[in-house]
Amino acid sequence: MIESSINMNEIKEIAESWTYEAAAKIKREMNESYSVDTKADEHDLVTEVDKSIETFFADKIAKQYPGHRLMGEEGSFKDIHDLNGVVWILDPIDGTVNFVHQRTGFAISIGVYQNGEPLVGIVYDVIQDEMFSSVKGQGAFLNGVRLADLYESRLDRSLISFNSGWVLQDRRLEALIEQARGMRSYGAAALEIAYVACGRLDAYISFNLAPWDIAGGCAILREVGGVASDYEGKELSFMGKGTFLAANPGVYKEILHTVHTS
Amino acid sequence: MIESSINMNEIKEIAESWTYEAAAKIKREMNESYSVDTKADEHDLVTEVDKSIETFFADKIAKQYPGHRLMGEEGSFKDIHDLNGVVWILDPIDGTVNFVHQRTGFAISIGVYQNGEPLVGIVYDVIQDEMFSSVKGQGAFLNGVRLADLYESRLDRSLISFNSGWVLQDRRLEALIEQARGMRSYGAAALEIAYVACGRLDAYISFNLAPWDIAGGCAILREVGGVASDYEGKELSFMGKGTFLAANPGVYKEILHTVHTS
Repeated sequence: MIESSINMNEIKEIAESWTYEAAAKIKREMNESYSVDTKADEHDLVTEVDKSIETFFADKIAKQYPGHRLMGEEGSFKDIHDLNGVVWILDPIDGTVNFVHQRTGFAISIGVYQNGEPLVGIVYDVIQDEMFSSVKGQGAFLNGVRLADLYESRLDRSLISFNSGWVLQDRRLEALIEQARGMRSYGAAALEIAYVACGRLDAYISFNLAPWDIAGGCAILREVGGVASDYEGKELSFMGKGTFLAANPGVYKEILHTVHTS
Repeated sequence: MIESSINMNEIKEIAESWTYEAAAKIKREMNESYSVDTKADEHDLVTEVDKSIETFFADKIAKQYPGHRLMGEEGSFKDIHDLNGVVWILDPIDGTVNFVHQRTGFAISIGVYQNGEPLVGIVYDVIQDEMFSSVKGQGAFLNGVRLADLYESRLDRSLISFNSGWVLQDRRLEALIEQARGMRSYGAAALEIAYVACGRLDAYISFNLAPWDIAGGCAILREVGGVASDYEGKELSFMGKGTFLAANPGVYKEILHTVHTS
């Protein structure tokens, strides 16, 4: 299959429409099981909703695009050992702790990749109804409005997001805290990468993310000139868990410099 | 003036309606000056909007409640040296960095206090349209739906919010990071206290807040059984800047214990 045979705009339209349908399904399932109040029950709720949404997408993709493959958090990743051809990389619920604890602050994340290159990105904040999306070469959008290209910002003007727990694992982050304008943490990787893409954040860092946490956001980020790599600046493989840094291009360079000289 | 002569429900209704009017005004002013892109311009935008919203409330209060006083961030606090009688404690824009940098994630915060006791609380997320409100003895509400009383939760099941920069100032916070379920940071004190009240967060900590940052949220929090004090557990004065801790009642005790034994 060659890229020219793929209608990326059609994939984006269809992926958005399935995402809205899946979001309605998630909200129904949330309302039906509102009594979750123990960790065991919470775990069951997440697993149940995660699985049902992944099955929903697996069925849709198999019917609409039989040549495409699905790499999802709930099981289907086990069959994926490369990114050859077209692969949908799906996180049915990104921000699972927010999902069970806050009932808000979580997203559906989809990256459609061809031979490892992002074609389409979707990050949808289910409760706030914010649809971030992108098509390769055609830009990124928030609820249909095109996002501006990121200009090169500076670390001392930046809002940076990472879980403060990472400071205990890597003290080099303290240099970033001292230099940045401010710190945030939202607990949902896909949303935080989308926030970098739209300029609400200037960088997002994590030390343990899976391909499905980042695939959708990275597709979107690339369309506005944002940069993503692992925390040391190496290219992402999308084939296993690892560290992660997404940033405004100017801030990206300053962060790598700060990290490597701290 | 004695409390029985005060119609707290009327104050809440009127405060909510003024808040919605002020929010529309803020959104108009944001759209008119969308080109802000330097720190100096940002500062001007915040100051301008802050002042215009404070003047808006000052005029409304003077006309409707001539016996009440206003303590606001933009100037009117200078005339307030005690909390005798009825005082409206106002933050026209809580989360000013979010306001200029993100164009979302900020709130209007109002606490109406009588002789230092909270009568009415308002915290309104302008962009997400979330109205947190409370009336003394009658509960707290999110968009008109009553919030449940907080049950006593545990630190190891908690989401705790504070700016990770505070870790560099007080290493005792690292013990909290190690024990809590997860960390967040949203950059808007009033919203973060409201999130504790509705259970999205279980604790919020800051080391430098003014009365107008916390007055609205504290009124709301009290109505659901949440606890607020300074970071060492001492009563809040609402008369100057200081440290702050708001939490679920169970988590509050564990945090103070952890802080004092770290």
